[in-house]
Amino acid sequence: MKRYLYTGLFLLAAAAPLRAEDGSRLWLRGNATAHARVAAGRQSPTIAIAVSELQAQWQGAAVQLSIVPNKALGDDGFSISGSPQSGVTIAAVAEQGLLYGAYHLLRLQETQSLPPTLSITETPRYALRILNHWDNLDGSVERGYAGRSLWKWGELPDTLSPRYAAYARANASVGVNGTVLNNVNASPQILSPPMLRKVKAIADVLRPYHIRVYLSINFSSPMALGSLETADPLDKAVQRWWGGKVAEIYRLIPDFGGFLVKANSEGLPGPQDYGRTHLDGANMLADALAPHSGIVMWRAFVYSPNDPDRAKQAYQEFMPFDGKFRPNVIIQVKNGPVDFQPREPFSPLFGAMQRTPVMVELQITQEYLGFSNHLAYLGTLFEECLQSDTYARGAGSTVAKATDGSLFAHPLTAIAGVANIGSDVGWCGHPFAQASWYAFGRLAWSHSLPAEAIAREWLRQTFGSDSAFVEPAAAMMMQSREAVVSYMMPLGLHHLFAWGHHYGPEPWCRVPNARPDWLPSYYHKADSAGLGFDRSSTGSHATAQYFTPLREQWDNLETCDERYLLWFHHVPWGYTMKSGRTLWSELCHRYQSGVDSVRAMQQAWDRLQPYVDAERFALVQSRLRTQARDAVWWRDACLLYFQTFSRRPIPYALERPVHDLDELMKVKLEMTHHN
Amino acid sequence: MKRYLYTGLFLLAAAAPLRAEDGSRLWLRGNATAHARVAAGRQSPTIAIAVSELQAQWQGAAVQLSIVPNKALGDDGFSISGSPQSGVTIAAVAEQGLLYGAYHLLRLQETQSLPPTLSITETPRYALRILNHWDNLDGSVERGYAGRSLWKWGELPDTLSPRYAAYARANASVGVNGTVLNNVNASPQILSPPMLRKVKAIADVLRPYHIRVYLSINFSSPMALGSLETADPLDKAVQRWWGGKVAEIYRLIPDFGGFLVKANSEGLPGPQDYGRTHLDGANMLADALAPHSGIVMWRAFVYSPNDPDRAKQAYQEFMPFDGKFRPNVIIQVKNGPVDFQPREPFSPLFGAMQRTPVMVELQITQEYLGFSNHLAYLGTLFEECLQSDTYARGAGSTVAKATDGSLFAHPLTAIAGVANIGSDVGWCGHPFAQASWYAFGRLAWSHSLPAEAIAREWLRQTFGSDSAFVEPAAAMMMQSREAVVSYMMPLGLHHLFAWGHHYGPEPWCRVPNARPDWLPSYYHKADSAGLGFDRSSTGSHATAQYFTPLREQWDNLETCDERYLLWFHHVPWGYTMKSGRTLWSELCHRYQSGVDSVRAMQQAWDRLQPYVDAERFALVQSRLRTQARDAVWWRDACLLYFQTFSRRPIPYALERPVHDLDELMKVKLEMTHHN
Repeated sequence: MKRYLYTGLFLLAAAAPLRAEDGSRLWLRGNATAHARVAAGRQSPTIAIAVSELQAQWQGAAVQLSIVPNKALGDDGFSISGSPQSGVTIAAVAEQGLLYGAYHLLRLQETQSLPPTLSITETPRYALRILNHWDNLDGSVERGYAGRSLWKWGELPDTLSPRYAAYARANASVGVNGTVLNNVNASPQILSPPMLRKVKAIADVLRPYHIRVYLSINFSSPMALGSLETADPLDKAVQRWWGGKVAEIYRLIPDFGGFLVKANSEGLPGPQDYGRTHLDGANMLADALAPHSGIVMWRAFVYSPNDPDRAKQAYQEFMPFDGKFRPNVIIQVKNGPVDFQPREPFSPLFGAMQRTPVMVELQITQEYLGFSNHLAYLGTLFEECLQSDTYARGAGSTVAKATDGSLFAHPLTAIAGVANIGSDVGWCGHPFAQASWYAFGRLAWSHSLPAEAIAREWLRQTFGSDSAFVEPAAAMMMQSREAVVSYMMPLGLHHLFAWGHHYGPEPWCRVPNARPDWLPSYYHKADSAGLGFDRSSTGSHATAQYFTPLREQWDNLETCDERYLLWFHHVPWGYTMKSGRTLWSELCHRYQSGVDSVRAMQQAWDRLQPYVDAERFALVQSRLRTQARDAVWWRDACLLYFQTFSRRPIPYALERPVHDLDELMKVKLEMTHHN
Repeated sequence: MKRYLYTGLFLLAAAAPLRAEDGSRLWLRGNATAHARVAAGRQSPTIAIAVSELQAQWQGAAVQLSIVPNKALGDDGFSISGSPQSGVTIAAVAEQGLLYGAYHLLRLQETQSLPPTLSITETPRYALRILNHWDNLDGSVERGYAGRSLWKWGELPDTLSPRYAAYARANASVGVNGTVLNNVNASPQILSPPMLRKVKAIADVLRPYHIRVYLSINFSSPMALGSLETADPLDKAVQRWWGGKVAEIYRLIPDFGGFLVKANSEGLPGPQDYGRTHLDGANMLADALAPHSGIVMWRAFVYSPNDPDRAKQAYQEFMPFDGKFRPNVIIQVKNGPVDFQPREPFSPLFGAMQRTPVMVELQITQEYLGFSNHLAYLGTLFEECLQSDTYARGAGSTVAKATDGSLFAHPLTAIAGVANIGSDVGWCGHPFAQASWYAFGRLAWSHSLPAEAIAREWLRQTFGSDSAFVEPAAAMMMQSREAVVSYMMPLGLHHLFAWGHHYGPEPWCRVPNARPDWLPSYYHKADSAGLGFDRSSTGSHATAQYFTPLREQWDNLETCDERYLLWFHHVPWGYTMKSGRTLWSELCHRYQSGVDSVRAMQQAWDRLQPYVDAERFALVQSRLRTQARDAVWWRDACLLYFQTFSRRPIPYALERPVHDLDELMKVKLEMTHHN
């Protein structure tokens, strides 16, 4: 009898984690009934958060939080010592170190990775770990696929959504310490006094979590808000206006982080409108911010419409200024030279710009990777970029080391991720999209963490620790971004997207009077001879922007990494690839392998049903179904379109297209890039 | 030099057959430049056609056409003797025999099947080989997927479309000798004097091809056209009216064939409206037609809305009248007991109704097999029906023998096919749909011809004789209907179609106040226990309408043919099938195999590109792509819906669904069943 009773209880306990989940708890789903003993030698709002998180969740022996004068830990670092059985000490130089230490200890617990003896020292590799929100003041989110903006400007500053604190907590738990609240395509209105009071209200909520607020600014703000007749950065009145505006901000938000600037890019105003340079503009703003220790993150995403190779332009425009920026300016460079494609080689500015701080801008939101419909874990993309070797100072000069202050000794180091967060109750629109946010934070802290380890960490905290679940789910995540590359743009293809929304395929896209470099044909250059953009020495010679040996390897068709082949070369359809297949045949196989990968993910996920709550299981399953349809759509669109040039059959052993090209060319999705 | 020239000529010759084709020439694509010597002992319009076809196409020695008093040949038979090298004689009792002989000789030539010595005698197995057009007088076609009606009622009788003669020629070439011009859901107006003049004009065009015209009539015609107050078949005025109307028709069309009648079926009027029976109605019309040698084809497709098993009703209603019909009445019975499903067992009336002529009604138009979007060669379906053994007189009592006069000695024998022909320039909407028309004609002539041989015949004439083409294409055709069964309704499932248009899947279909037997749930009876309609002795006992040993075999779950399993049984989800799989698992495998078969057809077709003109190649390829999408749609809709009952996972080794059930349940195609 007793035995049956126990069995019953056991089943009940096992069934409990299967209750419905809406994803709102992210990876912070630890049991909050622990009542741990936690002591701290000092009181502060930040330390109070650390104490309360531990009290609620820590299941080991007592924890002591100590401020110590250990310079080696830096501002954000911490050490953890002792043992879960006898007592734990978290030590840090500053309160935020204690907070990060507390989250680290809890992460070890939740991922079942607690060693018997704790001897941990952690310091972040980037000083500033920043989310960029492309949120507009009207509540829409550019390239946002998780509902409307998190920031409820209409009800601020009086009403504070509980999501603001939840957002701060999630970011703090992975070490994010800054956030740019508004879109880089910035409205001048963000700097108006009423808006700044709203910004202050958010900053006040985020401050205890040690998250600084930054703002994207519009370079014409002095004219739009200050009634000046110019925004010329060398104009004294303009400089005065910015000085005054910055002072106004710091009166409201004493720990304000600084400005993110997109200038003279895609139609936005900038110093070039007045015959000045990016250097003039960035330094002017830097001078205004310097008295308050604020910084300028100046984006290098600039390209003029008529240059022969867009991929070369940022390098050409910024390299002449290297070493001439103020010390509180950092150049924010997208991971690749074009625009957040499923795969790009790293931007040649990384490693090349040595006398100026440079930061990587990663895109967490899946603008070019299927929105929040497709499962694409971007930890692998981020890792691929950060671990790319620039060879700037010989082998081992990775993008990570070229930006973390170790290769070039700049005190200002940072990394940015364009957020995928919105009003969606599950935050990111797709349960697995949370993992890319998580991975961004973890890599911003420790850029050498393997993406796979991060995936496992995230899975254990978000779904559960059963290895029968974690291992297949991690395998699925690890192949997911490569699957997108394969069914969208394998072998170095890029920007085959539909005009505007960047969701579906439109390699044939023609828009009257459009900028050529906004059209796919600019990038794929398909013709009867072959496919790809010749950026080698016989073409635009973008390869010359890279260091030896990359410049030579990538310049040569025979030695070029096939992942970037069509990025750097216009390759004949009949060219023999490493597989022994022709380019055309290899292309067909890659597209099919993308489709096959999605189907394999579907099978993997369905097998995991016993381990997942019904709600998230069904949502992911449904999204995977959409992804499988889209993968076939992509395959058919690209192969059937390129086939009009190659005039070769799709290898007969491969699955045949199920769409007709002329039908696909009629598809017009009613999508915007603003939610 | 000379050698190069020859090579060039050779290539030119080889390329010629690849010129664009619109399908309008059907299987009659013989070279028309032969100038053969042809002599005939008698002149007539029909013989003139035979002579001119041979003159234009026959490439052998001279042909002599002879009328001979050889009774064994019957009215339509012929013999062919002699040799292609020295001279050929075609002999027949009547002129149509010479026409059929001429087409037969040309078919042997075009299919490269001419023996050196000709010794052929052919007689048809059915006296009447009739197409049924479900064409409405407004130019629409019920269940027509090849454009509008062939008959241009608006411009008749003054304007005669050249398509009428082309239609007659195509039918004559395969032995079809009758056509019902209008829909069985007949408008009384077809019998109005103006319409009859139009019918006469068509009959005059068809007559030289020896094709008789028949009409579908509305049983209420005496009221609608004659202003009578009743259509009671026992009413003298009604009988007089029909007698007069028939005489009027025969004055215009002396060889008029007779009437096809759908009465008291799906809302149409009939004798039961007056307390009379089908027998009363059919015999009354038969009496009106008898003086002119006309016949009545009385359809057995009748079923009342509230009977417990629709599949049993025709048998129940008609068996009591067996032996009581006039000799010029024939009962027209659909191949299966329900309604032209992708697969049904044969109707139990075949073999059971022994003292009355019975004719098979086949559906050539793909109402339930994907319209003209899906490649489904129906030769195999027709063969399966005709070769089904009814066991009425022991083993070997096939449906064919039960209807061709051999098993039950009725002089009146016939077979009908519901046409798939319309205004489409390629006649049938899908190049391969022509093959089902062709196969109907060939089987109506000779019901023991293998469907595969017919497919090869048709392919050789329609596309070309290269065996590298014919063999794979024939294989594709031979598996095509089974593919449809698998992805739509395997294992005896039936009528899971969307309301109205019968194209897509709607196993969940609910329509307020609808007749239960027009809803899929009536047929599949899915519940948590299992799937299928119990028509065994524990259910509706429809099995009792079949002869031993079928009644016992099909009644027993263990011995029932699995092709009909869910037709006759409500089977538990966990039931072990012959494969060793559970019913649920087997169902999943069958649906997937249907999808796989379509993909295999796609691959097969693409490999055949070198052998096919670009126009038809692209059209078939495009249709196959649609079919592949639809097959996945069907698989997902049915499996996901039935899964809500089975509560079992789709076997993990199988490809996962790509649609969500709730999305699919929202799909409403804007389709009608009238073109």
